[in-house]
Amino acid sequence: MADDDFRPFRDGFRWDGVDLLAYKEDGAAPFKAITRQVLFAEAGMGCELRYFEMAAGGYSTLERHQHVHAVMILRGHGHCLLGEAVRPVKPYDLVTVPPWTWHQFRATRGEPLGFLCMVNAERDKPCLPATDDIARLRSDPMIAAFLDGVAG
Amino acid sequence: MADDDFRPFRDGFRWDGVDLLAYKEDGAAPFKAITRQVLFAEAGMGCELRYFEMAAGGYSTLERHQHVHAVMILRGHGHCLLGEAVRPVKPYDLVTVPPWTWHQFRATRGEPLGFLCMVNAERDKPCLPATDDIARLRSDPMIAAFLDGVAG
Repeated sequence: MADDDFRPFRDGFRWDGVDLLAYKEDGAAPFKAITRQVLFAEAGMGCELRYFEMAAGGYSTLERHQHVHAVMILRGHGHCLLGEAVRPVKPYDLVTVPPWTWHQFRATRGEPLGFLCMVNAERDKPCLPATDDIARLRSDPMIAAFLDGVAG
Repeated sequence: MADDDFRPFRDGFRWDGVDLLAYKEDGAAPFKAITRQVLFAEAGMGCELRYFEMAAGGYSTLERHQHVHAVMILRGHGHCLLGEAVRPVKPYDLVTVPPWTWHQFRATRGEPLGFLCMVNAERDKPCLPATDDIARLRSDPMIAAFLDGVAG
């Protein structure tokens, strides 16, 4: 067995042999207080499994893309925007982000929010919302409250 | 948002809209007290994400195959055999099962043991150990104790 085939979990949602990374390498997209850890990115596997964690009040980028996200909440409570729905989320809830669906996660509960995200190893780049996309989303009061960080 | 894009977690490690399945459809392989739930198997994704759970004393099939398993323990404590190593496992530990590596999970701690397993959607069938494979594995006292259900 190679040394890295078994990677124990450590306090603070860290793992032996897993680096704590910036959320995105491209700093142009808006986000806040969120980190990324790549748990599995194996040669020959069609997908990667990543762990993202927001500090209280943090959020992921509001974006959409062709590729699908398969998400399981792992730590804490918060909210997610998926398409036109804002949902509270708790540990082990499952969220499927279909192609070209606006989505964002927010740590709205005064605690960290962490989730697993399975994604194709080869995928397209996310698209950010244009001004009219934001206006359309904000026409729903629940989504407006979510985007203003006052959901729930 | 389609109704099944958000599937809440329920007590007992069940999810809305996720069926509790037999561990294997082929009954020829040895296993004990283990169930399977397919959490994500989306069109266009290269992988699936499954949740397997053993009752106390249960175990998965001892097997190997070409495809890789990417495992995260989700519930409880137990042991895994990976190649020639027996390891205690706890929630959130990561286990990579490389190609053609013998592996088995056992709920050795008097409690359920559950884990996530990411795997390629298209994959080869597992191979079971022949008599001489078992003999070779059993030549290690730790592995023999594991296979006899008295590890740890």
